Amino acid sequence: MSLADTARPQLKLRFIHLDTGRENVVVISRHSHALRPEIFRGFSRVELRQDSKVLLATLLITDDDGLVGPDEIGLSEPAFHRFARPPGSLVSVTPATSPVSLNAVRDKIQGKILSAAEIGAIVDDLAHYRYSDMEIAAFLISSASFMTSDELLALVDAMARAGTQIKWNVPIVVDKHCIGGIPGNRTSMIVVPIVAAHGLTIPKTSSRAITSPAGTADTMEVLTRVDLGVEQMKDVVAACKGCLVWGGHVNLSPADDILISVERPLSIDTREQMVASIMSKKIAVGSTHLLIDLPVGPTAKLANALDAMRLRKLFEFVGDHFGIAVEVITTDGRQPIGRGIGPVLEAQDVMAVLANDPAAPMDLREKSLRLAAHLLEYDPQMRGGSGYARARELLDSGAALKQMQKIIDAQGPSPCCNDVGDLAVDIASPDDGVVSGIDCLQLNRLARTAGAPINKGAGIRLFKKIGDRVEKDEPLYRIYAFDHSEQDLVATAAKASTGYAIDGGLPASNRRTA
Amino acid sequence: MSLADTARPQLKLRFIHLDTGRENVVVISRHSHALRPEIFRGFSRVELRQDSKVLLATLLITDDDGLVGPDEIGLSEPAFHRFARPPGSLVSVTPATSPVSLNAVRDKIQGKILSAAEIGAIVDDLAHYRYSDMEIAAFLISSASFMTSDELLALVDAMARAGTQIKWNVPIVVDKHCIGGIPGNRTSMIVVPIVAAHGLTIPKTSSRAITSPAGTADTMEVLTRVDLGVEQMKDVVAACKGCLVWGGHVNLSPADDILISVERPLSIDTREQMVASIMSKKIAVGSTHLLIDLPVGPTAKLANALDAMRLRKLFEFVGDHFGIAVEVITTDGRQPIGRGIGPVLEAQDVMAVLANDPAAPMDLREKSLRLAAHLLEYDPQMRGGSGYARARELLDSGAALKQMQKIIDAQGPSPCCNDVGDLAVDIASPDDGVVSGIDCLQLNRLARTAGAPINKGAGIRLFKKIGDRVEKDEPLYRIYAFDHSEQDLVATAAKASTGYAIDGGLPASNRRTA
Repeated sequence: MSLADTARPQLKLRFIHLDTGRENVVVISRHSHALRPEIFRGFSRVELRQDSKVLLATLLITDDDGLVGPDEIGLSEPAFHRFARPPGSLVSVTPATSPVSLNAVRDKIQGKILSAAEIGAIVDDLAHYRYSDMEIAAFLISSASFMTSDELLALVDAMARAGTQIKWNVPIVVDKHCIGGIPGNRTSMIVVPIVAAHGLTIPKTSSRAITSPAGTADTMEVLTRVDLGVEQMKDVVAACKGCLVWGGHVNLSPADDILISVERPLSIDTREQMVASIMSKKIAVGSTHLLIDLPVGPTAKLANALDAMRLRKLFEFVGDHFGIAVEVITTDGRQPIGRGIGPVLEAQDVMAVLANDPAAPMDLREKSLRLAAHLLEYDPQMRGGSGYARARELLDSGAALKQMQKIIDAQGPSPCCNDVGDLAVDIASPDDGVVSGIDCLQLNRLARTAGAPINKGAGIRLFKKIGDRVEKDEPLYRIYAFDHSEQDLVATAAKASTGYAIDGGLPASNRRTA
Repeated sequence: MSLADTARPQLKLRFIHLDTGRENVVVISRHSHALRPEIFRGFSRVELRQDSKVLLATLLITDDDGLVGPDEIGLSEPAFHRFARPPGSLVSVTPATSPVSLNAVRDKIQGKILSAAEIGAIVDDLAHYRYSDMEIAAFLISSASFMTSDELLALVDAMARAGTQIKWNVPIVVDKHCIGGIPGNRTSMIVVPIVAAHGLTIPKTSSRAITSPAGTADTMEVLTRVDLGVEQMKDVVAACKGCLVWGGHVNLSPADDILISVERPLSIDTREQMVASIMSKKIAVGSTHLLIDLPVGPTAKLANALDAMRLRKLFEFVGDHFGIAVEVITTDGRQPIGRGIGPVLEAQDVMAVLANDPAAPMDLREKSLRLAAHLLEYDPQMRGGSGYARARELLDSGAALKQMQKIIDAQGPSPCCNDVGDLAVDIASPDDGVVSGIDCLQLNRLARTAGAPINKGAGIRLFKKIGDRVEKDEPLYRIYAFDHSEQDLVATAAKASTGYAIDGGLPASNRRTA
C-alpha cells in the first residue's frame, strides 16, 4: 500500500457536521477524482496526510454532493480537531495500513508474552487514536485471558506516560479511589475538604457517570464547575490544597479512556485492566500516597472477601513497583451509602454532613471520617491512631465545610441548577418486616431510568436502610423525575421490583410495637 | 434499557446517501425531539424498531438539518435495505443492548468451552448483523487461541445453516477448493468444464479478490456474467452440469463473510477459522465430494508439509462428520501457476489451455488435469486410476472447451471489456543466472499496484519461471497498466524488488551457451 502514498491527487479539507463520538470519520464523494471507490470501501480505514501530519480514520462514501464535493474530503468531529488543519488545506488520502504494534497484539493472541517495548508501542498507538475499535478489542481480549506481572507493570507505566503527567512540589500528595458500584457513595466530597483543611495536598480527579446514575464529577458539578484544565486545577490546589474536578479535561492516561470505551460495551472487566486503569491515572496525577476503597457486598463489584483480597494484592504490587504508598481497605458494600441517589440528592447528603446537620446520613459521615483518618495518618506529623479524631475535629468544627466553600469558590460557579425533580412518586413496601437487603444494581437502574445523571435532580431518596423496620404500604423511597413518561416507566419498574428484601419475622400483632 | 423502549417519540425514516460498507449506520439530528443526545453518543449502538422488525446500527449525530431533520432518522446503505421499510415509516430508536449471545463470547474469553446451542446463537446473531465490529473481533479472538473439536463442528454446522442451503437431486455433487495465495492459479476454470463435460455435477462458487490481484470470480467475469442468484445458478447447472459464479449473490454461509470482514483487517487466520469458513460454504452449497488444494511453498499460505498435514487432518475430520467425502492434496506453491497475473491475463491462460494452444502454460494444464482426475474418480463408473486419462481426453478432444462455451453462454454476457492495459513496461533481470525462486507475495503486490483486479486488464505476464535461465537485462516479466501514475509506481517498485531470486552459478563465459 505504501507504494500508492505519493502520487494520488489531493483533496480539499472541509468540516462536516457529523458527531462520531471519539471515532475519527471522514467522508468522500463517490465521484471523487482522488479515489478509487473500489479500493476505498465504505467503513474501511484510511490514512490522511499533510506533510508530517497523519490521521487514521474510518471512511464513509457519499453520493450527496452537497455533503462533500468530488474534490473535497469531509472531516467530522473529532477528526477535524485532531487533524488540526484549516478548511481548504490539501490532504492526501490512502488506504490505511494497520499500526505496526498490531503485530504484538497478534503475538499475544497466540499466547506470547510481550516485552515492555511492545506494550509501550501498543499504548502509544492507542493514545494517538491509531487503533480501530476492532483492533482495540483485539488487544483487550488477547490480554484479558492472561497477563504476566511484568506485562501489567509495563502497561501501567506506558499508560501513565502517554498523557499529561503532573508534578507537585510537595513530598506528600494523597489521593483516594473507590472502584465504584455503590449508589450514593460520595465520600470524596467530604474526605477532600477534611484532608485539605488539615493541610495535605489532595488533587482529586473523578469521572462522570457512564453506567451509574452519578459519578463524583456529576455530583460536584451541582455545586461548582468541574471541567477544569490542568493549569486551572493546579491553581485551585495551590489556593486550597485540594480540588474535586472532572478528569476528562486533564488528559490523564488517555489510553485508558480509549480502552474503557471498548471495555464497556463489551462488558470486559478484568482485575489487571481495572488496576492498570486506576494506577496509571494515579501515577500520572502525581499521587504519592493512595487509599483504595473496595466495597464488598452481594450486589457490589466485589462479592466476597477473597475477590477483594486478590485485587488488594494487585494494587499493592503495582503501587510498590512505582513507589506509591498504597493502602487498600474493604468497606461495607451491601447497600447504598447515604440517602440520596442522583447528583442533586447526593450533593444534599454531602453538604448536610459537612454542615453537621443532625439529619445528615450517619453512614456517609462515618465512612468519610474513616477514609479521611487513613489519609491524615500519611502526615508524618500525626501520631499513629490519631487520624480519626483529627478528621472528626476538622468536620465538627466547620473547618471542612469552610474548606469546601473555598474549593467551590476557586473552581467557579456551577453551570447547572440544583432543583430536584418536580415529579415525585413514593414506592411502598409490599410487606411488613425488617429490611434485610438492598439491591444496588436495581437502585442504580431505577435512578437512571428516572433521568439521572442527565437530569441532575432526578434520582431516589431512600427512607429505609438495612435493619430498619418497615410496615406494609410504608414508603421505602421516593423517586424524583422531570418527565411524565420517565416517571411512569420508573414507577412501574420499581413496583415490579423494589430492590428491597423485607424479612417479615414477627407476628402481625407485634409489628407496630416492635 | 428495556424500560425505555416503549415511550419514545417516533422518527420518520429517510434514505441518505452514505455508503458505509457492510455496517449498518443511521444518522439523527442533534435537535431530534426523540433523542437525548447525551444518551445516544456518536458511534454508539442503537436499535431501530417498527413492529416486529428490528435493526441494530451505529449512530451518527449531525448538526446539518439538510441531512436529516429533527423528526427524521437517516438510514444509509446497507441499513436502509436491510431494514426494508419505506421512507416516511415511523420507527422508534433506543440504545441497543448487546446481543444475549455475547455472554457466551465473554465465557469463551474466560476460557470456557461453549455448547452447540451457544455457538448457534452467536452465529445467528452474526448472520443477522447484530454484532458490532468490536463484538465480532471479541468472538474471533476468544476462539482463535483455543477451540475444541466439538466447538469447531458446532461452528461449521451453525454457519452452514445460517444462509442459503442448496439441494441437488443427484447422488454426487463434486467441488474443489484452493486455499489461495498463488498468483495465476485459475485451475477451477479448466477443472469445472472437464468435470461437467464428463457428466458430473459441479456447481462452483468462487470469491472475488480482496487482497490478491484476482479471484476466480474476477477472472471468469472477463468471459461471462458471474453475479447470478441461486435460481439462475441452478438453471445453469441444470443445463451445463457445472457453473462458475461469484458466491456473493448466493448467500452461502453469510456469517462467514461477516467474520472475514473482521479477520482480514486484523490479519487473524487460524486453521479452525479457515476450515469453518470453507466447509460451511461447501455444506451449504450441497457438495458431497470435495477436493482441497493446499499449495505449499516459502511464500505460499503453507510454508511446509507439516502445516499442510495438520490442516489436511482438520478438513478430513470435519468432512467425515458431515458426510462429505474430502480429499486433500498438497501442490507446488513455490511460484505462480501459468503466465498471467490479473483477470484478463489469467483468462487468456485458461482459454489457451482449453483450446489446446501449443503456447498455453503447461503447468496450469498439468495441475488442472491432476485435480480433474481426482474429481472424475468420484464417479463410481470410472475405473480406479483412469481419471487422468479421462481428463486429458476431455481436454484434448475439445469437449472441455465446448463445455466452457456452453457455461459461458448460459451465464450470460460479460459486463467488462477484456483488453490488457495499454501501458506496458518490462522488468529486466539484474543478473545472469537461473531463476531459483519467485516471491508470490511480491508479484501479488505488484499486480495490485498495477491496478488489478479493478482494472481487469492490469497485471503481469511472466516470461521466466523457476529453473529458467535468464541473462542480465533480459525481461523477467511485463507489467500492464492503464494509468501513468500507477505504471510509474509499479515499475519503481518492481525495479527495487523484482520478486525473483536469480542464482548465478556459472562462469560468465558459459552463460550464453548453457
